[in-house]
Amino acid sequence: MGESFGAYTIGMDDEVIKHITSANVACGFHAGDPLVLDKTVTLAVEHNVAVGAHPGYPDLQGFGRRNMDCTLEEIRNYVVYQIGAIQAFCAVHGTRLQHVKPHGNLYNTAAVNEDIARVIAEAIASVDSELIYVALSSTKKDFMNKIAREVGLKVVYEAFPDRAYTSDGTLLSRRLPGAVVRDARVVAERALMMAKEGKVIAVDGTPIELDIQTLCVHGDTPMAVELVRAIRERLEGDGMVLTPMGEL
Amino acid sequence: MGESFGAYTIGMDDEVIKHITSANVACGFHAGDPLVLDKTVTLAVEHNVAVGAHPGYPDLQGFGRRNMDCTLEEIRNYVVYQIGAIQAFCAVHGTRLQHVKPHGNLYNTAAVNEDIARVIAEAIASVDSELIYVALSSTKKDFMNKIAREVGLKVVYEAFPDRAYTSDGTLLSRRLPGAVVRDARVVAERALMMAKEGKVIAVDGTPIELDIQTLCVHGDTPMAVELVRAIRERLEGDGMVLTPMGEL
Amino acid sequence: MGESFGAYTIGMDDEVIKHITSANVACGFHAGDPLVLDKTVTLAVEHNVAVGAHPGYPDLQGFGRRNMDCTLEEIRNYVVYQIGAIQAFCAVHGTRLQHVKPHGNLYNTAAVNEDIARVIAEAIASVDSELIYVALSSTKKDFMNKIAREVGLKVVYEAFPDRAYTSDGTLLSRRLPGAVVRDARVVAERALMMAKEGKVIAVDGTPIELDIQTLCVHGDTPMAVELVRAIRERLEGDGMVLTPMGEL
Amino acid sequence: MGESFGAYTIGMDDEVIKHITSANVACGFHAGDPLVLDKTVTLAVEHNVAVGAHPGYPDLQGFGRRNMDCTLEEIRNYVVYQIGAIQAFCAVHGTRLQHVKPHGNLYNTAAVNEDIARVIAEAIASVDSELIYVALSSTKKDFMNKIAREVGLKVVYEAFPDRAYTSDGTLLSRRLPGAVVRDARVVAERALMMAKEGKVIAVDGTPIELDIQTLCVHGDTPMAVELVRAIRERLEGDGMVLTPMGEL
Repeated sequence: MGESFGAYTIGMDDEVIKHITSANVACGFHAGDPLVLDKTVTLAVEHNVAVGAHPGYPDLQGFGRRNMDCTLEEIRNYVVYQIGAIQAFCAVHGTRLQHVKPHGNLYNTAAVNEDIARVIAEAIASVDSELIYVALSSTKKDFMNKIAREVGLKVVYEAFPDRAYTSDGTLLSRRLPGAVVRDARVVAERALMMAKEGKVIAVDGTPIELDIQTLCVHGDTPMAVELVRAIRERLEGDGMVLTPMGEL
Repeated sequence: MGESFGAYTIGMDDEVIKHITSANVACGFHAGDPLVLDKTVTLAVEHNVAVGAHPGYPDLQGFGRRNMDCTLEEIRNYVVYQIGAIQAFCAVHGTRLQHVKPHGNLYNTAAVNEDIARVIAEAIASVDSELIYVALSSTKKDFMNKIAREVGLKVVYEAFPDRAYTSDGTLLSRRLPGAVVRDARVVAERALMMAKEGKVIAVDGTPIELDIQTLCVHGDTPMAVELVRAIRERLEGDGMVLTPMGEL
Repeated sequence: MGESFGAYTIGMDDEVIKHITSANVACGFHAGDPLVLDKTVTLAVEHNVAVGAHPGYPDLQGFGRRNMDCTLEEIRNYVVYQIGAIQAFCAVHGTRLQHVKPHGNLYNTAAVNEDIARVIAEAIASVDSELIYVALSSTKKDFMNKIAREVGLKVVYEAFPDRAYTSDGTLLSRRLPGAVVRDARVVAERALMMAKEGKVIAVDGTPIELDIQTLCVHGDTPMAVELVRAIRERLEGDGMVLTPMGEL
Repeated sequence: MGESFGAYTIGMDDEVIKHITSANVACGFHAGDPLVLDKTVTLAVEHNVAVGAHPGYPDLQGFGRRNMDCTLEEIRNYVVYQIGAIQAFCAVHGTRLQHVKPHGNLYNTAAVNEDIARVIAEAIASVDSELIYVALSSTKKDFMNKIAREVGLKVVYEAFPDRAYTSDGTLLSRRLPGAVVRDARVVAERALMMAKEGKVIAVDGTPIELDIQTLCVHGDTPMAVELVRAIRERLEGDGMVLTPMGEL
């Protein structure tokens, strides 16, 4: 959320906010600006939605989705900076930052590159060790658990009901066809399987076991409102109770 | 301080830091970047120098020195954002942000525009009411005292030994000749008169009474090291004791 | 046109382009990016629409609508740079840049500040003296004619059917209510009066005589397509023939 | 050259310009701004130095030295845009752009990635097919010759007297020790061997044959002036005549 910028609007945050429990809020590098941050944190507080930082690469033109070959020190300090920026808006609006989830290419890279995953974890812990690190649930995530122990940080694993998975348990690249699932019913069923069984069916039919505590839907698609509503209805209809990840 | 950016270096922060008690650190809008912030806060902590935020307009190309006709809401949120960013680096390095001093044109405008001075004060107080607001000492500063009372914020008044003053107690514009005093001995004498007598002699010879608690030297001039050393020697040679403004 | 940026979309350029004869294309400072420039110039060429540069302040966050107190030399070089950027895309797509129209606050300032109007004219002429300078038609435009003669540049005067005018012949500030006229029929009638009689009725009812050769509709409003279609139908229905300003 | 930005200065362009025949001028993406472009093109014209565009990634914070995973379309349009920007300043100052040399990581990537080398060549030719494409001379450059033929563009091969080479004929990464040669006498000897024999000695002692028509020295090091002077003296002392590459 909070990915609008100046005169530019992306997302239907006012609607999406009604159906979620935790929000990943852009911090001004890949998207968002100070006014949008203020508006988005205000919105989250009004709807009792927990606020998370969504730090990305300093690449507004590429929306943080292009790989940038940053050094570990650059990544560390980009994450610290963006966490601080959103923490100030949390302070202004009487809430506390709940979690940090890297954005776009930084998130994807951290899912496969242990050094980058670790430097992000260290950055988060160095600002506030109570913050939760949201990472991609993946069959390859063993190093994430190790990092969490070393750094002393709580990790929450995430899955994407509206994204296709490869058979090795990673997200299918956005540059490939079928990367995004658009049918709300299908997405809701995938969400239920993820939440209840810790399972996702890959594009080639392979069932994958995943450790999942949070589900994410991208807010910048026109479908976002429909998807979050459908997922919430499906999960609650099945008797599940949704809470901000800080209350897990 | 901390006004370098990427491959670009401004200032001799490593030397200047040895002679000061409080630092105004750029926060990434008019100057500075996350790596520079990290380096600068580290440097300040090593030298027992108190850290202040130096928020400016989002205008790197103009170094924050051009007026931008921002709305009050824009200014409020620019200040909140930048305070948060530097607070995170303070947290990482085990210190606490001491003060906030607007930069460049934002500072100059706040010195004469009550609405802008107030929205900056409100922004500071909304993040942390313990922060000190550093404002230009001026014969026109009555509204600053009023704002401080209203918002519940401590204000510290500042003077510039290396800047010429007009007879109405404001800084002579940088676009005019003689705006900057470059002789270290002259600057040190002006500093002593400011600190001891609360007085400055304007360009036309008029003596002006000012309420002054802190002296500022610009770190982006080649002279900066010489000036801060000369001032410190002159003041301490006269028996004065210099402390971070948070200890006043 | 061409005011989208990266992942951000503004305007319905694909539709608007069908109804106009000249396009003002953002050049990457206040809006637009190289990909958007390429797409927009391609679109213009496909629809036989003449291409104009729409240079603005380097302020993406403010969309070029905030005043920036730039020096004349800064403005001169900002205009030269942006003209060059779009000229390259014109070369790639086999067309020639027709005109230059400053954007947003730069445009408004040039309408009342002779020095700024002149430096823009000089910048345009220094790159290519065949370019047309599009300026606000106003009762105060005497200096524009003088500048055009001095610099040796053709000026075309512009009016805004969807903007309210004050009784002194300038645009009502966007910060005031009623600044934008949204009813397509009303806008079309105003356009006809402007084109045929060189007249506009100010907000207080005063009729104002203006020298008008081109009409502009803002492309970043949802109404843009409806307005340009309505205006074109009204003008052509009245027997007028619309041509790119280069053919005047 | 022209890599200063706003209040930030890099390089000693005023001195370096006296000793060179062609200049690579930053175009505002990785470095440079419109005022710096104007100043730099003015300087080049005054010293009869031919002007080249030095387009880079849109990454001021990383000075264009970090890899950015841009699409071919992004690279194409970034190059077109930057060529146009500098062409406008050439027009203003009565000269003609001579060549285009990609900067930093874009240059390095083009030296090994045929698709990127081709899209840059296409971008250059689409704006002006008289422009010269300056590419890294390398034992791996066969595809560059092929691209030049296909696109119909003249390629000039370049070597770096102040950079270490690996035994496979590519530049040693800046992140490795010894990547930059700092001794002016050594650099001048390397330059002579490059210019006269088309040869360079790699870090492991391997002699490498290279096709070289132009030598480049980085202007952002303190040594730049000394190096270009030493190289020029050594080459002219050996009877060689230096000319802008457009006169080859």
